[in-house]
Amino acid sequence: MSLSQSHREIVENAIKAIHSRAFFAQYPESPKAYGEEASTEGLKLYNEQLGKKFELLKQQNPTGWIGEELSPYTMKPLGITYPTFEVDTLLVRAGRAFGEWKKVSADERAEVLIDALERIKNKFFEIAYATQHTTGQSFVMSFQASGPHASDRALEALAMGWEELKRFPESITWEKPAGKSTIKLQKQYHAIPKGVGLIIGCSTFPTWNTVPGLFATLITGNTAIVKPHPKSVYAIAIVVAEIQNALQQKGHDINICQLAVDSSDNLITKKLAEHPLVKLIDYTGGSAFGKYVESLSGKTTFTEKAGVNSVIIDSVADLAAVAQNLAFSVSLYSGQMCTAPQNFFIPEGGISSPVGNISYEDTVKALIDAISGIAKHPAMGPGTLGAIQSDATLKRVDSVSDIATQLLAPGKVANAEYPDARTSSPIVLEVAAKDFGIYENELFGPIVLVIKTKNTAQSVELAKEMAGKHGAITCAAYSTNEDTIKLIEEEMESVFTPVSFNLTGGIFVNQHATFSDFHVTGGNPAGNASFTNPEYVNKRFVWVGHRRNG
Amino acid sequence: MSLSQSHREIVENAIKAIHSRAFFAQYPESPKAYGEEASTEGLKLYNEQLGKKFELLKQQNPTGWIGEELSPYTMKPLGITYPTFEVDTLLVRAGRAFGEWKKVSADERAEVLIDALERIKNKFFEIAYATQHTTGQSFVMSFQASGPHASDRALEALAMGWEELKRFPESITWEKPAGKSTIKLQKQYHAIPKGVGLIIGCSTFPTWNTVPGLFATLITGNTAIVKPHPKSVYAIAIVVAEIQNALQQKGHDINICQLAVDSSDNLITKKLAEHPLVKLIDYTGGSAFGKYVESLSGKTTFTEKAGVNSVIIDSVADLAAVAQNLAFSVSLYSGQMCTAPQNFFIPEGGISSPVGNISYEDTVKALIDAISGIAKHPAMGPGTLGAIQSDATLKRVDSVSDIATQLLAPGKVANAEYPDARTSSPIVLEVAAKDFGIYENELFGPIVLVIKTKNTAQSVELAKEMAGKHGAITCAAYSTNEDTIKLIEEEMESVFTPVSFNLTGGIFVNQHATFSDFHVTGGNPAGNASFTNPEYVNKRFVWVGHRRNG
Repeated sequence: MSLSQSHREIVENAIKAIHSRAFFAQYPESPKAYGEEASTEGLKLYNEQLGKKFELLKQQNPTGWIGEELSPYTMKPLGITYPTFEVDTLLVRAGRAFGEWKKVSADERAEVLIDALERIKNKFFEIAYATQHTTGQSFVMSFQASGPHASDRALEALAMGWEELKRFPESITWEKPAGKSTIKLQKQYHAIPKGVGLIIGCSTFPTWNTVPGLFATLITGNTAIVKPHPKSVYAIAIVVAEIQNALQQKGHDINICQLAVDSSDNLITKKLAEHPLVKLIDYTGGSAFGKYVESLSGKTTFTEKAGVNSVIIDSVADLAAVAQNLAFSVSLYSGQMCTAPQNFFIPEGGISSPVGNISYEDTVKALIDAISGIAKHPAMGPGTLGAIQSDATLKRVDSVSDIATQLLAPGKVANAEYPDARTSSPIVLEVAAKDFGIYENELFGPIVLVIKTKNTAQSVELAKEMAGKHGAITCAAYSTNEDTIKLIEEEMESVFTPVSFNLTGGIFVNQHATFSDFHVTGGNPAGNASFTNPEYVNKRFVWVGHRRNG
Repeated sequence: MSLSQSHREIVENAIKAIHSRAFFAQYPESPKAYGEEASTEGLKLYNEQLGKKFELLKQQNPTGWIGEELSPYTMKPLGITYPTFEVDTLLVRAGRAFGEWKKVSADERAEVLIDALERIKNKFFEIAYATQHTTGQSFVMSFQASGPHASDRALEALAMGWEELKRFPESITWEKPAGKSTIKLQKQYHAIPKGVGLIIGCSTFPTWNTVPGLFATLITGNTAIVKPHPKSVYAIAIVVAEIQNALQQKGHDINICQLAVDSSDNLITKKLAEHPLVKLIDYTGGSAFGKYVESLSGKTTFTEKAGVNSVIIDSVADLAAVAQNLAFSVSLYSGQMCTAPQNFFIPEGGISSPVGNISYEDTVKALIDAISGIAKHPAMGPGTLGAIQSDATLKRVDSVSDIATQLLAPGKVANAEYPDARTSSPIVLEVAAKDFGIYENELFGPIVLVIKTKNTAQSVELAKEMAGKHGAITCAAYSTNEDTIKLIEEEMESVFTPVSFNLTGGIFVNQHATFSDFHVTGGNPAGNASFTNPEYVNKRFVWVGHRRNG
């Protein structure tokens, strides 16, 4: 038995969690759980890495060393360089490693990958600093998203893959009665991996959005080439290095999982994606490139692209609680989340509440005040909004300022610890329902559009149309009317968009819980895959059955 | 509980069979099981239908009545006409019915569809005559393939779909500890069907190749439009009529499952396939049209196209038994099966056996004698070879006769019952290994190519290359050497092709058993789908999860 008892229990508990969909976290959420020592060690590792070569990868004979990461907090380059390799070298190594890895049992693969997750756990603090200073996420969010939450998603994909690989027996004796005698065949069922998988990362969630595809690819016997965003390499480089450690420890070729770093002025993504050996592509990023990935023939693709997420406000139990919740959702990491709400549909006649009708203007005012309150709060402001990952996002905030009526102006978010941080509080614009040319675009970053509608029916119609045409990953809705809730549920699920109803307090539409919430449905233009449904792993291998007489 | 106990048991037994992959048949195989009375009744129904309108469908207000079927046995038109409808009418009806069917529970859908299968069972004899006199299959094969075997495949797809729809709970309470308090959400998980499914049938297996996609589409809540081959409508028309009966009986819209008949000179397939409401396409047929289907954007496709199936002969325990088995495989329905072997790779140095080396020439002679023996046998000949479905297939046999050295000439197969039957015994040609331009094509029909190779290593290499480049659904191999068996297994599964080893006696490479053998792997150019792996049903719907505070 190549899967140790303790690791088997981790996998089996994860499978149970996936089926029950109840709350479960293998890698606890709070940074406090990891102690003072780990924190100090993580900061030390981070500081020692700055300005140096990243030498933890085991890939041999690089052609050079490059790096262009810059901290959105200090606005200074990290000065870390990573080894580069020819595309052909990466592919030859991945192809050779495939010959070995495809023959390794599902149990042994799980053993290696759980071992990798245990190693990664010991690097959560360094990964957190690496994430903070490449993405601009706050430290706490960096820790959670790139550490325990990412590892939970990796485990989820691993467990789902393992379960599917075990779905049919490895071999059986098949006996068919045929008159007086019996026909007897020995049958074997092999889950054959497709080949080399390419995992294309994004700049804002370098591990969370990469590890599900990476672990799904590896557990099913494919080899992996991870191509991170050139501005966000450090965190996933640690992850790949630990996977390579786990592989080497068990005597496997470390090229089963390779890192492929490139530079903004010499991207190698298309060259990798179009290579005939690459059979699987996981992608997170903008829609244009995502459509290109999906269009490649002979590839199985898993994409998460952009979407326009809606908020439908019909009626509320407590407007202040609603406004506070939504303000946090748009402020969290300055709206740089694929799950962040953008389009707020509010009826011109106002919304009903236990204290009577609240006018459109008062509803909008409550929202704006709450957003403004978070941004201006000295501790909550920087802790929630973090920093802006790229200049392009900051410029976008500026460039949209005159496309509609400005309800709330953006501004710098004061950050005592990092006075030079690239920041922006949310801009809020008011758009007429007829001006769909504005709100049908994903405006990535701290940009909120309030769309004044005739009534809730129109709000729902427009939210549905946006999701169907342009994709949506989330939808938040507020209604105290059961019929309206039912209507919203039916209309939004017809465009394959999940709805979160009446969220207040400490739970937000942006958050998708591992083992419980499917992240992206795969049914609308926001992406063609879902973390983690059975299809997400099944499409990475092929069932082949052999038969023998006797 | 809308799924009756007896029907639930049928579904659950099928699920057990799928998981154990042991022999199981819900709809028994032998025509004898169905009794004299059913046989007489079936023939009566068939004879009464000839020359008349097919009036069993419940679709209203046809625009006309057409039919162009012809019996390959009598060479006379059947004279049956079927109702036609405008493409837009079919789509409007399917779209409207979708609004209803998608809300029906998985249990209720299963209840209706099992009821349909029970009704279809009572029509097995009429379906058999309908199949025989459109496809040219022998009566026994028509009965088995279009009757019990097809219904077993339908049940398999239905059961797999039902299991997947039940995979996650419908609703849960999610409680997450958060410090001193607990965050609580009500969560629902909905399996949302994709829309309208188009199922495109083929001329040779009008029900067997259609019902898996049809039942997979319907159980997952999509509505279905069945577009049969214009020369092979009758058998599937009975199936659709019985599904409509079952739907009506339970008070559902009969347009949940529609038949869309067209004519050879005015095909409506592309118009249907390209319609935006059509989200799923199941297709069986030639490669060119299959590639077109796969290329349609915004559609989820399930294709079974052509392939070139190989036989690798390395060494044998009993050449006579091997030759007899393979001769039957190429003769069965005159090679008009997607699973029929075509390319026989035999080493020039001969093959080893317990009686010593058998020369290439003697091996080929044994094969030819066995093929010829079947064709010339007065009872076994017509009973095995049946008739040729289309003139194009007959012409193909003629047209290839001078492309290589002819080892066995084709000829008419004497049929005492149907002297006018369109028949052809297999042509056997010898091709050099270097002439891959000949054997890389699927030559559909009774055409066998013997390819003289340097040795078994070259045989395996060429069989693998053919499967990888042009697709393969089956591969038969004969070897008494365990290392060679292992090699063939590994090489062929790397191109996602299942291998049947050393088949002799009453089991043939052409036969894929429901609940046990995956039909087509989906991993090579022969098709992108597999009867019935989890992907075959999962891709027809999308998991959407809603959340509510409290």
